[in-house]
This record gives sequence, structure tokens and C-alpha cells, in this order.
Amino acid sequence: MTVELIPIPGIPAIVPGDDLSSILLGAMRRADIELRDADVVVVTHKVVSKAEGRIVEAADDAAYRSLVEDEAAEVIRRRGDLAITKTHHGFICANAGVDRSNTAEGTAVLLPVDPDRSAHRLCKELEAKTGTDVAVVVTDTFGRVWRRGLVDVAIGVSGLPAILDLRGMPDGEGRIMDVTEIALIDEIAAAADLVMGKADNIPAAVVRGLTARGDGRATDLVRAADEDLFR
Amino acid sequence: MTVELIPIPGIPAIVPGDDLSSILLGAMRRADIELRDADVVVVTHKVVSKAEGRIVEAADDAAYRSLVEDEAAEVIRRRGDLAITKTHHGFICANAGVDRSNTAEGTAVLLPVDPDRSAHRLCKELEAKTGTDVAVVVTDTFGRVWRRGLVDVAIGVSGLPAILDLRGMPDGEGRIMDVTEIALIDEIAAAADLVMGKADNIPAAVVRGLTARGDGRATDLVRAADEDLFR
Repeated sequence: MTVELIPIPGIPAIVPGDDLSSILLGAMRRADIELRDADVVVVTHKVVSKAEGRIVEAADDAAYRSLVEDEAAEVIRRRGDLAITKTHHGFICANAGVDRSNTAEGTAVLLPVDPDRSAHRLCKELEAKTGTDVAVVVTDTFGRVWRRGLVDVAIGVSGLPAILDLRGMPDGEGRIMDVTEIALIDEIAAAADLVMGKADNIPAAVVRGLTARGDGRATDLVRAADEDLFR
Repeated sequence: MTVELIPIPGIPAIVPGDDLSSILLGAMRRADIELRDADVVVVTHKVVSKAEGRIVEAADDAAYRSLVEDEAAEVIRRRGDLAITKTHHGFICANAGVDRSNTAEGTAVLLPVDPDRSAHRLCKELEAKTGTDVAVVVTDTFGRVWRRGLVDVAIGVSGLPAILDLRGMPDGEGRIMDVTEIALIDEIAAAADLVMGKADNIPAAVVRGLTARGDGRATDLVRAADEDLFR
């Protein structure tokens, strides 16, 4: 079945205390997007963090670097201004996810304290206001160790399994598949980024047509340190 | 603008020498999918490799391991039966991309010799047979160092830039973005996998609604060894 990636334009600048679910639904209404059962609402963490008040002062580069140290549970590698860090959620990313783009000069945006909880809250509010049964994915933009370029990944989820576990299912030739744990919510995050656009200031999209439902957490994607061959 | 992910069902088992472009177009015709300008046709390397005759004997685990050694330009880490390898293309992935799923018992499928060239050839054939201007992405399923679960990534491309370079563009607040090289073709590969399904045996999809055009190579995503903090 065809899956649609539908951008949600016209979302205003978000400030602390904003009711994000109402703002998203208002933008959807203006864009003639009506939420349906099984829709996945994908939002960049930036708007979630801003609504939750996770905006801090970062007057200069030194202040920024100090914020990164504060936010990082562990610094894994450094090169120049780049720190590869483990966040307190367990995600490994550049500069502990502290971000100075798409925020006012002299400020930085931190990751949500608990992005899975943020996703869950937003999901419940969207459902309550629309009478639908939907899912939410909260994203950030991460680099990869061995591939150039960045991709959006999931750092929070509600209403979906993080991983689609196909192990033990037969493949097209009837053989049992072995390597088949698909990082569903990361594929959804990457897909949604195709219509979200950092330059276009579209921080949310609806992914329509998926059938998976479940009760995962983005932290399910955190690889245990003892499974990690590259630390 | 909305992007559509359209699965192409009904693709028969591919054997060496098959005319993949005709087979894809036949399956599209039966599914009422008419190729349009700017469509991106995404195919798993599996069908490309099979059409190109990259099927080899792998009678048992020892034969499989020996194939992996042959296909790997370098083994970066080992744990048990898992070898993290650099392929001769430069991609870093498990077991040099040698795959025993979705192929006949006792055989394995190797990566295409030059997946960018495979993508280019398929693209030109699809264009010649339909009079359209399209793009092609050839995918494989890779693990990630620090995140559980697998995602589809691009190992070959024609008609698209590998990376969307937004550096120097203003963000929504008018500030110049710094970290904004987006791995476009990896996001396309991940998106398409949402409708392709390893268990459902749907090895191809059309991604419709993207506007990017260009002349990239999937090997553009290979990170130079001297930029790699984790080797």
C-alpha cells in the first residue's frame, strides 16, 4: 500500500509553554490535513524542546562548549570543536544534541529531558483533541560513523514499536530470515525529513499508510555498551 | 508537497541475465503504476545483483565465511560469525554485504561490482523505454554502530545528488546553518523500505514527489579514512 509523506507547513515559531498539539492541529487545519487513525505525526525535537522550555543562553562558542559538557553523560571522541557524546538518554551524537540553528541569536536548544515521554504526551493530546488513534515520532538529525551526510533519526516515539522484528519469518524463498530487525522509527524519521526541510522551516509531517502499531520507546534503539564493537 | 512511497508488487524471482528494467516496467504496468518525470525508482541490490549474475555457491557456513573474506577489502572488527568489513567500494557493513536471505538454499548473493554503474544503466534503460526523466537508487540493509536495528541505505544512485548541501543557507530564523549536509539518498532508501518489506518480497518502489535532481554517486557517502574518528 502507498505511504504518503505530508508536510505540515505554516507552523509558527514556538515559545516555551506553547500548546504544541493545538498549534500542530491548527496548522494542519489551515493546510487541509485531517488527522486519521494510524497516521504518524513526526516532529523535530526542536519544536518539542522549545515548547518545553529547553532554550538556554549560549552567548558565544565558549558558552556553547560548556553547555555541551553539561548535557553530555560521556564524551567519546573529540576533534576540534566536534565532540561525539553520549547523552543522558543513551543516544550517541555530536555535541550532546545541543543546537544553535533555528533558534534566536545567543541561544541554544537542548534535547527534551525525556523525548519518549514528550512523544507520548503529544500523542495523547492529539488523540484526545481529534478522536483518532495516532502515533508520534520525535526526531533529531544525527551523523553516522562511516557515512558522510546526516539523516534524521527517532529520539522519541509513542504508538509504534521502535524495531520491527522479522526474525524467524520466512523470506521470499521460504527460508528463515536471520538479519531482520528493522529500525522502523528511524526509517520513518528519515522518510519524513524528505518533506520537512531544515531550510524551509517545516518542522512536522504526517506519515500516512503504515500499518505497524505498538508500544515502543526510542531508547530501545540504544545499543548496550557491551554489544558495541566501536567504543 | 506530499511525497508518495509506492510499492511495486509482483516482481518475479530474478535470474542472471534478466532484463531488470523490462521486468520492473511489466510489474508496474500490472500494478497500474505509470512512471513519471522526477520519479525515483528504488530497488534492493538483491535483484540487481541477481540480474547481473552475482550469485555464488555457499554450501555451508565455512564457504560463506570464505566468501566474506574474498569480498572484503578489509576486516575492521570481528565478533563471532560477524565481521564488520570495508567492501571494495568503500562501504563499511557486516559480512561484506554477502547475503544468504532471499536466495536459493546453498547460494549467496554478492553486492554489484559497481552499484553506481548498475543504477546508471537501469536509469537509462527505464528512461529510454518510457520517455521519462527519472532517478534510480540501489539499496542494501546496513546496521549502525550505535543504534540497534537495521536501516536501508543507498549503495548506488543515478540522477540524484548523494548529499543535499544546505550549508550556507539561512535557517528559519535567518541564521546561516552549519550542520546541514543531508544524506538525501540514504533518506530515500530508508523511506522506500517502509513499503518494500523483506518478508513481503517487494524489492522495489517508486518515490514520487521529490524535486531534487543531480548527478551524484553513492560512493560520495564514503567517509575518508582520515575523517573517521572510529577506525
